[in-house]
Amino acid sequence: MTVLILTGEEDVTADMVVVHLNAASVPVVRLDPADLTAGVALSGEYVHGSFRGHLSAGGRLVSVSGLRSVWVRRPGAPAARAAQPSAWLTEEAGQALYGMLRGSAARWMNHPDAARRARHKPWQLRLAQRCGLPVPATIVTTFPQAAREFAARFPDLVVKPVSGAHPQEPPRAVPTSRVAPDTDFAAVAYGPTLLQRRVAKRADIRLTVVGEALLAARKETPADADPDEVDVRFASAATPWLPTEVPPRVAAGVRAYLRTAELAYGAFDFAEDADGTWWFLECNQSGQFGFVEVETGLPVARTIAAWLARPAPREPGCADDRHLAAP
Amino acid sequence: MTVLILTGEEDVTADMVVVHLNAASVPVVRLDPADLTAGVALSGEYVHGSFRGHLSAGGRLVSVSGLRSVWVRRPGAPAARAAQPSAWLTEEAGQALYGMLRGSAARWMNHPDAARRARHKPWQLRLAQRCGLPVPATIVTTFPQAAREFAARFPDLVVKPVSGAHPQEPPRAVPTSRVAPDTDFAAVAYGPTLLQRRVAKRADIRLTVVGEALLAARKETPADADPDEVDVRFASAATPWLPTEVPPRVAAGVRAYLRTAELAYGAFDFAEDADGTWWFLECNQSGQFGFVEVETGLPVARTIAAWLARPAPREPGCADDRHLAAP
Repeated sequence: MTVLILTGEEDVTADMVVVHLNAASVPVVRLDPADLTAGVALSGEYVHGSFRGHLSAGGRLVSVSGLRSVWVRRPGAPAARAAQPSAWLTEEAGQALYGMLRGSAARWMNHPDAARRARHKPWQLRLAQRCGLPVPATIVTTFPQAAREFAARFPDLVVKPVSGAHPQEPPRAVPTSRVAPDTDFAAVAYGPTLLQRRVAKRADIRLTVVGEALLAARKETPADADPDEVDVRFASAATPWLPTEVPPRVAAGVRAYLRTAELAYGAFDFAEDADGTWWFLECNQSGQFGFVEVETGLPVARTIAAWLARPAPREPGCADDRHLAAP
Repeated sequence: MTVLILTGEEDVTADMVVVHLNAASVPVVRLDPADLTAGVALSGEYVHGSFRGHLSAGGRLVSVSGLRSVWVRRPGAPAARAAQPSAWLTEEAGQALYGMLRGSAARWMNHPDAARRARHKPWQLRLAQRCGLPVPATIVTTFPQAAREFAARFPDLVVKPVSGAHPQEPPRAVPTSRVAPDTDFAAVAYGPTLLQRRVAKRADIRLTVVGEALLAARKETPADADPDEVDVRFASAATPWLPTEVPPRVAAGVRAYLRTAELAYGAFDFAEDADGTWWFLECNQSGQFGFVEVETGLPVARTIAAWLARPAPREPGCADDRHLAAP
């Protein structure tokens, strides 16, 4: 049974995982959907009620039924590097590749549907609340008056994008910033704005979860830190990331979160306050882990490799009247 | 409890459903995400572990917890009609709106994730097979040699797009066409190609399924029909669509299909052969039903209205260790 890794050619983070899979003699096929139909080929046949599918990449042929897991790392847009790329070819190639893989029994890290859903920050906040994780008071609004009332109740606020990275090439992370006390919120009417109570933090937490395994890193906030520096991605490197323990209630909360979200992998960001409470900021289903592993020595790559190497479950069936209630 | 309809202003098919909801005194809010943030506004607050959200459209305010169902009909791209539209604003507005709605307890016709998955034709074919629906022999391939071998086994073939409509403005349906006997398949290498055994049909079937309700229409193939006219969307109007009965095995199959696909609505296309067998061609999760209702009198709009009017289930929770197995 083979592990399929969908990613670009230059992906040192994927390389870190492949090393462990190779060491365990687990067969790996790595391909970039962008190389369809130049270098990567596919074929699937639906005859007499059954399906036989194959992928070919780098001269290797693998059967779809022989896949134990699919790691959706950093795949390119399907057929983006074809001889004559087009939106139509990308659509056709994407439907063919993912349509075929979606019918397989392989385990996904992460499944495309779960990944897509998990990117919605309002949905993340609600799910975190339901799973018992403390969430700083937050509003997402296009009503200037609602923003003003929220700012009156919670005067110390940060603003951040609802959706994450700005859709430009290459994508640019939009930093979380502090809201000035005299802010007028009239511009809120022109685009949804996410305002959140600023957590006076004594540390940032990056909790990487792989299946049931929790790998937590903590970066202390220097005592002389500028309170306007709220975004750890742009913070100084004065203090290192160090491994840390996960409080049991947080452990139960994040496991329940990932289970409900149907994610096999998630990188949680928390802000730790003076009381030691971990405040949920977000869960990035494709969050980088290379820097965590390099700085802390936490075995993220090995844990991912072990998850991917597990055997596939039996092929999914069709919902049966006797087992499922009507929708 | 309110029914939320996401669609454009000019949508006579939605109008047909609204008539029935109005007659039953079910509150309806209809909005086009394209009108964010000009005309449509939203606000959601996450405070002390709970969520309160509101939508405003056409001067009406509705609470997210007061939604019984969401009908995703023909929504525009979020904020497409804003004063200063941009890809970034569309992304932010889409995440805010759908992120908020995804956290609600409302029933969806159809849920965006299920809708997205259901568009993958290779996945459709595999699911139909698993649900016991007869599927004509099909291949999806980028290997010319695989296409040639398939054509040798099944000489009478049609070719159709893997993904459906061509991504141009306005979208153009690409007709299913017959494959000439002397076709060389060299071009298959440049883009995934879907080839399917042609069903010698005596009728086309359009089976519209709403929840558990089956509404079937049949259009007989004229005896003198040109066998090259395989696509019913482009066929002559010589014979009418008429209501028809659904064979019990097909009924069980399509209900299981929709349940597994987590779809509340699906428009199935079948080709009926000389033996009376219904061959699965596709299931369009957003298939039009206006022409069916107008030609046959089948009460599709009323059935959709009744489905949308049902009460919402209780709010979803967070997966609990005791109830769900580890992923």
